[in-house]
Amino acid sequence: MSCEDKPDLNFKKAVSRIGEAAKKGARIVCLQELFRSQYFCQTEDTELFKLAEPIPGPSTEALSKVAREKKVVIIASLFEKRTPGIYHNTAVIINADGKIAGKYRKMHIPDDPLYYEKFYFTPGDLGFQTHDTRFGKVGALVCWDQWFPEAARLTALSGAEFLFYPTAIGWLPGEKEEMNQAQHSAWETIQRAHAIANGLFVVVVNRVGREGKLTFWGQSFVADPFGRIIAKASADKEETLVVECDLSKIEETRQNWPFLRDRRIDSYAPLSARFLEPSSSK
Amino acid sequence: MSCEDKPDLNFKKAVSRIGEAAKKGARIVCLQELFRSQYFCQTEDTELFKLAEPIPGPSTEALSKVAREKKVVIIASLFEKRTPGIYHNTAVIINADGKIAGKYRKMHIPDDPLYYEKFYFTPGDLGFQTHDTRFGKVGALVCWDQWFPEAARLTALSGAEFLFYPTAIGWLPGEKEEMNQAQHSAWETIQRAHAIANGLFVVVVNRVGREGKLTFWGQSFVADPFGRIIAKASADKEETLVVECDLSKIEETRQNWPFLRDRRIDSYAPLSARFLEPSSSK
Repeated sequence: MSCEDKPDLNFKKAVSRIGEAAKKGARIVCLQELFRSQYFCQTEDTELFKLAEPIPGPSTEALSKVAREKKVVIIASLFEKRTPGIYHNTAVIINADGKIAGKYRKMHIPDDPLYYEKFYFTPGDLGFQTHDTRFGKVGALVCWDQWFPEAARLTALSGAEFLFYPTAIGWLPGEKEEMNQAQHSAWETIQRAHAIANGLFVVVVNRVGREGKLTFWGQSFVADPFGRIIAKASADKEETLVVECDLSKIEETRQNWPFLRDRRIDSYAPLSARFLEPSSSK
Repeated sequence: MSCEDKPDLNFKKAVSRIGEAAKKGARIVCLQELFRSQYFCQTEDTELFKLAEPIPGPSTEALSKVAREKKVVIIASLFEKRTPGIYHNTAVIINADGKIAGKYRKMHIPDDPLYYEKFYFTPGDLGFQTHDTRFGKVGALVCWDQWFPEAARLTALSGAEFLFYPTAIGWLPGEKEEMNQAQHSAWETIQRAHAIANGLFVVVVNRVGREGKLTFWGQSFVADPFGRIIAKASADKEETLVVECDLSKIEETRQNWPFLRDRRIDSYAPLSARFLEPSSSK
């Protein structure tokens, strides 16, 4: 989806697209990151906290109704107001009966030119979880999380069959085309790798269009448990992909490539360190 | 390299190739996994433990001499005999002065049809380390380790500038071409992802040729800290790639994509679990 200036219009468009997807047979619908508004983190402005809302709140109430009516699971990325001074970048998993199955608060928060998220979002405190829904075990992570194999692994270990990544990633102005392509390739590669390492489906939903200085690169995709891209959207047009995911592929893949069997859990404790001194045996 | 039946011939070929590489300007030379012999793990046979040798031992002594003479660092994958009943799949890092800089004992041991490594190799007990050498900070991992993001991360956190993966991976007989390609793509993808996630160089050295039932798929490659493949060898011919790695790219990449800054080390402790119960909020 692309986003316009007014949240109401984006919300209406999202609801209409969910209906379209449901009509085409979709069972789990994932919206892109912060779909209600343009990507506001391009500047640091306290006025923009007004976009935040409680969860449950107006958006989840409206979406619960849609989920119930259309009988679909909805993964909705929202700007959560938890209390004055604590706001999160949160993905809500709404079950097909309209009840909230769970929520995920973005754990890894970026701060880069035009992505000033550390100003707005308190790092998540719910950890990495799987949410049981009518149509599968859903793990939700958000955008910057996609660069962290730890996030994918922990969500997989909690039982996820899918990792959904609502995303808002785009190109900076004035970058060379070669660098743009290298960035996109790295982004796609590392997320395919999460599918491979964990033997599950990875679903990435990115926005399209230009907002302010950023050109979002779209190219939403679904990777199977072998890391193969089984569906991919365009770079610049809005699209609703409906993709069949054969859940039996998860066990089949993991039996043939039993990585989860062989993890050396006796040796992973130092992953909780920021950095380790090199054991220099010069 | 391809391997013949007699270890002596393979060893001589490896030494001659190290000389060739040094002449072309190589500073760190990595041999493929278990380069002294054919890949013997296709069967379980106690006779084959005779291939193992102590470290230091005949092979490291001969290679130390080569390293000193040619002024190169050598990463040599050997079948280590530690004591009767304990054998490891070990990568030795020999410094350019001929001294052993350190060794790595393969931590993740596969066991799949024609890769019966759990029969031969005791899982490593040295953890994941970086070894300071004259030409860079070297992390060595071995083959099956390549499927585990934890191994790459821990080695990177210990200061590595390079992850070297001596490898022996090939296609099973009778697999469909489509599956062969998917396997190769997954293998390349997940290792490029280690480069991306950790902002360092990844060097993968695989054997070529047919041995017994396996056809090794070659395609050794080097990925830069952005995950771009900057050099790649063929699938079926022996090749010595000499690849320039600009170490300043590591810091440049990590400043632009500061993943190490944002790791949520307060939340990674459950990575030491085998599996986590889903927090089913149905």
